[in-house]
Amino acid sequence: MLTLAFKPYDLRLKHVFRISRGSRSNAPLMLTRLSFEGIHGYGEASMPVLYGESLATATAFLNQVDLSGFADPFDTERILQYIDSLAPGNTAVKASLDIALHDLIGKLLQLPVHRYFGLPAAQPYTSMTIGVDTPDEMAKKALKYNEFRYLKIKLGTADDRAMITAIRSVTQQPFFIDANQGWKNKEEALELIHWLKAQGTVFIEQPMPREDITGNAWLTERSPLPTVGDEAVQRLADISRASSTYHGINIKLMKCTGIREGFKMAVTAKALGMKVMLGCMTETSCAISAAAQLAGLADWVDLDGHLDTVNNPYTGIGLSEGQLVPTGEPGIGITPGPAEIF
Amino acid sequence: MLTLAFKPYDLRLKHVFRISRGSRSNAPLMLTRLSFEGIHGYGEASMPVLYGESLATATAFLNQVDLSGFADPFDTERILQYIDSLAPGNTAVKASLDIALHDLIGKLLQLPVHRYFGLPAAQPYTSMTIGVDTPDEMAKKALKYNEFRYLKIKLGTADDRAMITAIRSVTQQPFFIDANQGWKNKEEALELIHWLKAQGTVFIEQPMPREDITGNAWLTERSPLPTVGDEAVQRLADISRASSTYHGINIKLMKCTGIREGFKMAVTAKALGMKVMLGCMTETSCAISAAAQLAGLADWVDLDGHLDTVNNPYTGIGLSEGQLVPTGEPGIGITPGPAEIF
Repeated sequence: MLTLAFKPYDLRLKHVFRISRGSRSNAPLMLTRLSFEGIHGYGEASMPVLYGESLATATAFLNQVDLSGFADPFDTERILQYIDSLAPGNTAVKASLDIALHDLIGKLLQLPVHRYFGLPAAQPYTSMTIGVDTPDEMAKKALKYNEFRYLKIKLGTADDRAMITAIRSVTQQPFFIDANQGWKNKEEALELIHWLKAQGTVFIEQPMPREDITGNAWLTERSPLPTVGDEAVQRLADISRASSTYHGINIKLMKCTGIREGFKMAVTAKALGMKVMLGCMTETSCAISAAAQLAGLADWVDLDGHLDTVNNPYTGIGLSEGQLVPTGEPGIGITPGPAEIF
Repeated sequence: MLTLAFKPYDLRLKHVFRISRGSRSNAPLMLTRLSFEGIHGYGEASMPVLYGESLATATAFLNQVDLSGFADPFDTERILQYIDSLAPGNTAVKASLDIALHDLIGKLLQLPVHRYFGLPAAQPYTSMTIGVDTPDEMAKKALKYNEFRYLKIKLGTADDRAMITAIRSVTQQPFFIDANQGWKNKEEALELIHWLKAQGTVFIEQPMPREDITGNAWLTERSPLPTVGDEAVQRLADISRASSTYHGINIKLMKCTGIREGFKMAVTAKALGMKVMLGCMTETSCAISAAAQLAGLADWVDLDGHLDTVNNPYTGIGLSEGQLVPTGEPGIGITPGPAEIF
């Protein structure tokens, strides 16, 4: 029998994190656990306020879940279809169950999840994100993050050029740029992208508002750098339309309901000739270790959501000179502790 | 260590089988076996003359394969990428290795392959195929196949209406129609499709020559029945273009290099809103049992290639009142015998 346990957890950040649309100093999490024959699989929903889910919605959702109809955890597609069918949206809490199920499956098979999916043992270089701040503060952050191969810079403000100039004055690390829908004028955006390319940028994430399909497509057609849809691409069904609007997609487990749909999104995007980026929210080592299982399918990896936290309740994936180092243990490869959660 | 063995096998048919482009009474096979730690996985390449592969090309290909660089059979993507990289084409012999590898993986995990992919235990209704013959002979065949829920009729000849009329006079079983690129005029094809719909047809496979993208797309836009690309869609990379030319795709392991790419094709096609059909060549229970592992992703199943053979060297998937019944055993669920192959 599959049994479910869950518990809220307040994940706190070392520093306040700002993007063009808001800021946060903590993330409300719902931690989940699926157990089968004495083996535990762990999952996590991270629910930044901006995205519409909360401890209340997650609790209501999880209270609806009845897994008594499923005798076999390997009946994965049917279990996840059932979970997805319980309510629209709720993608983060759905992901918490997908992650726990895959952790459980991996442990039952004694295989890391990436091996279960047939993928290589990747040790990807992750970018480290610098939130919106004064140009001087952002440059100071960049200096602190000198072990990372890439810096991800949140733009989409009136100060974009000053920020980049300040950071570039202290480091030559290439940039992943995330405008978070902050650019409103396509001609200005294109000019800025040309300038950002000259400053050493790898790609541009969500340049304009996701509703502006024409504007984003116009930019993608002309941009000298690849564009990546984030807010515009939540789930598998969104890729077909996005393929004519962006060069790539940002897959985040909390948007797409978990590892299995994330895998399908990566497969589909690559089949359509698109680039694949792996992203995250503010998360513990649980969800980050889960996402890293798919790194073998990713062109770019931005899995830094656990690095600036102060009370991560799991140990899991490591970091060495900017590279993520999965433990290679069965499942997603994490260990609960130091605090007792369940 | 992964070790490979292979052996040619001549699979013979009870009856000569004709389509609009040729006929056959046997199929040259290459049977393969991958072994790891004393466990054997079985695979098969079926190479009807029409498709360009032969015992000679398969032997040359397999003699190139060197798996000594792979210590772990679960390093699936890398192993299959290596195999795919050895030479272009050769899709059937590549599939024989993919099938053997997945059979091996399933046995190592003690899981049927469909469970390894997270898919339900499907018992799909398969169509039974009636080759091109005189209308009278085709009607006689239809009577013999009365246990099947669907008949697949090979058209694309000057006699299409007479054949259908003769068969319809003896049975009400719905038709899957396969024109095998045999229709050359799009207006006539459309008129015929309307007529075939009235005769109880479910879909139309490869109506016009695969090179005629405009003609097939024109038909798809107007057809009252779904169209399915077969000859036009070999591999994952073909789906993107096919999505504007057909409503669905026919996935055959011998075209697409095996179960893993077939799985990805089904995922991608569904993400693009396309229908998924599973098809086959003249094959033993090995390749048919392998394809049936993906039936949980298929809208339509045409896995009858083992049913009209006289010397099937494996026992595997069963048939009960038109439904395929997988054994549920680990891997692809087959047993060698009665004859000794390896």
